[in-house]
Amino acid sequence: MVQEKPVAVILAAGLGTRMGSGVCKPLVLLFNMPIIEHSLRALIARDFNVLVVYSNPALKEYLYKRFPKVQFVRNPHPERENGYSLYVAKDYVKDDFLLLMSDHYYSESFFERAAEGCSQDTAFVSSFCHDPQEATKVKVQSGKVVAIGKGLQDYNFYDTGMFYCTQEVLKHAERLVRQKHEVKLAEVFQSLADEGKLSAEIVEGKWIDIDTKEELKIAEEILREQIVKSEDGIISKCINRRVSLEISRFLIKYDFVTPNRLTVFSTLMGFITALLFYYGHYFIAGLMAQVTSIFDGCDGEIARIKHQRSRFGAVLDSVSDRYADIAIYLGMALSLSPTPLRMFAMFLACTGSIIFSYVWHLTKVRVREGGRDMRLFITMIGGVLSAIYPKFIILTLLAVGLLSHTCALISLYKFRTTSSQ
Amino acid sequence: MVQEKPVAVILAAGLGTRMGSGVCKPLVLLFNMPIIEHSLRALIARDFNVLVVYSNPALKEYLYKRFPKVQFVRNPHPERENGYSLYVAKDYVKDDFLLLMSDHYYSESFFERAAEGCSQDTAFVSSFCHDPQEATKVKVQSGKVVAIGKGLQDYNFYDTGMFYCTQEVLKHAERLVRQKHEVKLAEVFQSLADEGKLSAEIVEGKWIDIDTKEELKIAEEILREQIVKSEDGIISKCINRRVSLEISRFLIKYDFVTPNRLTVFSTLMGFITALLFYYGHYFIAGLMAQVTSIFDGCDGEIARIKHQRSRFGAVLDSVSDRYADIAIYLGMALSLSPTPLRMFAMFLACTGSIIFSYVWHLTKVRVREGGRDMRLFITMIGGVLSAIYPKFIILTLLAVGLLSHTCALISLYKFRTTSSQ
Repeated sequence: MVQEKPVAVILAAGLGTRMGSGVCKPLVLLFNMPIIEHSLRALIARDFNVLVVYSNPALKEYLYKRFPKVQFVRNPHPERENGYSLYVAKDYVKDDFLLLMSDHYYSESFFERAAEGCSQDTAFVSSFCHDPQEATKVKVQSGKVVAIGKGLQDYNFYDTGMFYCTQEVLKHAERLVRQKHEVKLAEVFQSLADEGKLSAEIVEGKWIDIDTKEELKIAEEILREQIVKSEDGIISKCINRRVSLEISRFLIKYDFVTPNRLTVFSTLMGFITALLFYYGHYFIAGLMAQVTSIFDGCDGEIARIKHQRSRFGAVLDSVSDRYADIAIYLGMALSLSPTPLRMFAMFLACTGSIIFSYVWHLTKVRVREGGRDMRLFITMIGGVLSAIYPKFIILTLLAVGLLSHTCALISLYKFRTTSSQ
Repeated sequence: MVQEKPVAVILAAGLGTRMGSGVCKPLVLLFNMPIIEHSLRALIARDFNVLVVYSNPALKEYLYKRFPKVQFVRNPHPERENGYSLYVAKDYVKDDFLLLMSDHYYSESFFERAAEGCSQDTAFVSSFCHDPQEATKVKVQSGKVVAIGKGLQDYNFYDTGMFYCTQEVLKHAERLVRQKHEVKLAEVFQSLADEGKLSAEIVEGKWIDIDTKEELKIAEEILREQIVKSEDGIISKCINRRVSLEISRFLIKYDFVTPNRLTVFSTLMGFITALLFYYGHYFIAGLMAQVTSIFDGCDGEIARIKHQRSRFGAVLDSVSDRYADIAIYLGMALSLSPTPLRMFAMFLACTGSIIFSYVWHLTKVRVREGGRDMRLFITMIGGVLSAIYPKFIILTLLAVGLLSHTCALISLYKFRTTSSQ
């Protein structure tokens, strides 16, 4: 059986002027990328066919250039509200579809849930809301929505603007559009709820309806929570991420900057660091090690924001980080004339930096203190100090080696404890 | 809800004398372990409560010492056949249970399927049979057994002697036992099949009913297929396994020889090899590297045969192999006075032997030629040749390093090709 691609309809015909920047709201930049593009990329990555209901031609123009496969339908009467926008989509969707708002930012969990589909009309509701006063509220009883609206006094969840819809929704929209001029989306779904036909699905994870500049800031915080890894070490958290996120913000607008290209670039930086060490430019090499460490975060950040994650990308990132690391420690060691101690120090650092990661992947137990961020930070300090006193090179190698081997063995020990329970 | 442990009943009251060794048949050694113990360990590893129906006190005596949690019930009339043995179990099982034969060897897939349970009385049938003439045949139609017996002319599967039973089976056994003196198991299940109450489940994988010495040999072949890893490299297949299986056969009878202890022992052998290299005893060190490589197989073999596999055991094995490897290459390199080339050669070998395994675990794509068996074989050859001309040490390190890095990169490349499809 050939599974048809799921369909998503994004309502982007609102007149929204409160942002006051003169730009059509869905095109307002969130982390240097239009708000609507975040959802659009999340949907496309999950193989949705997307239909955008727009009114501002600038929106279509922008999106069409970047996403030629997206379909567009114009709402000639945006003043008739978003219920009318939904009605406009009716000739373009023949089956069930996902409905969402162009000016909302949803975290990953929403798209994950949406991709699973539903068996009936369903409102994706949330217990999270940044602004309960402005939000559309929902009253859910035994899995069904019984009331939906802004002015609701008795409610237990918030409407997130994301719905799984059958053709039934379009019928209700059509009926209402014939009855009145302005039709709000909440009215359409209230009409469905009145007939007991609207289920509710509680989705964990944050979302936000972006109407003001303050809300744009909150949206960026939610987005940052999405892209910063939970396993980040202390150096990553306190130093690297702050800078790498700004680099990613700058790079995000360039389509040729793909995550895998960034991985290769950051590996090359590691190799350059290795050469700088080898030729004895310890001070610059040390600084370069830290820059490499910072850049190391960008591939993952861009991959997450642009929904370009891939299994190969993740493996390439891991493997090339290991090669960059061992090149650096080889460069450090070979910069001095060889002695057994120096060989041993290099041995410790090189094997440690791979084994730490090896044990982590095998056990899934991470001892953050031995992570790459910490190792390259030590390398930076060591490089800078070696510029004054070259023997610091050996101390640096020993420190990196001992730290990573110790942390690898701690991971193994912790894994033993947890896996025997 | 507390899930009760599943129950298995092993019928071991047969009079079987055809093996002619004077030993009670379930105690006949298959790979140096009684036939019945193979099934018993497989069941215990899957958390079954086991009941053994026996007639020979020697069987109970042997098993009770080693498996004090196993329950026993004596069949005072073994001459009344195995249908009577099943009847004898009736007061000891209150719920559904798995039924199997003590003189059959079943491959893993049978126990995996059995552990999932069934919703009704089910015969586990197979399309595999080593001796169609002697086998009990089964006729299956639309998922139901319609006939079962040795003399069946029209059949499509073989009875494996493994059944999932509800209390219904015991009722049928009881009725037959009251009617006649000798009751064969096939008669009990035929009676169930006559009422349309016996389902059939086709299980992939080999099994064998061991009645003769020839069948014991076939059983051992099936067992070997179970324990030899599919990812074995050529040196493993042609040399190591032949020896390691014999070592395992010897070690299997000692309960203190656990897989994890064997892992530690084989790692220590690696460290001894490293010291021998370091002190310049290249010839012995080279041979020792190959011995280490051979011993490396035993932990996994014992773990599989004795059903003592564990997640920690697998990780410990991987990590300690890596440490043994890098110790050996460090020992080799430090045995000569250090030069930049020697440092580089050591660097290649040490990092390569970890990265090869790292990439394998990340990609699950294995390039067999770079495996540990091949690396240690090269180390052995290199060690022996170095006894004549010490500079071979460097060549060996370079060979091991280049081979493993190349194979790691090939894995990565292959993974890219497959993961993008």
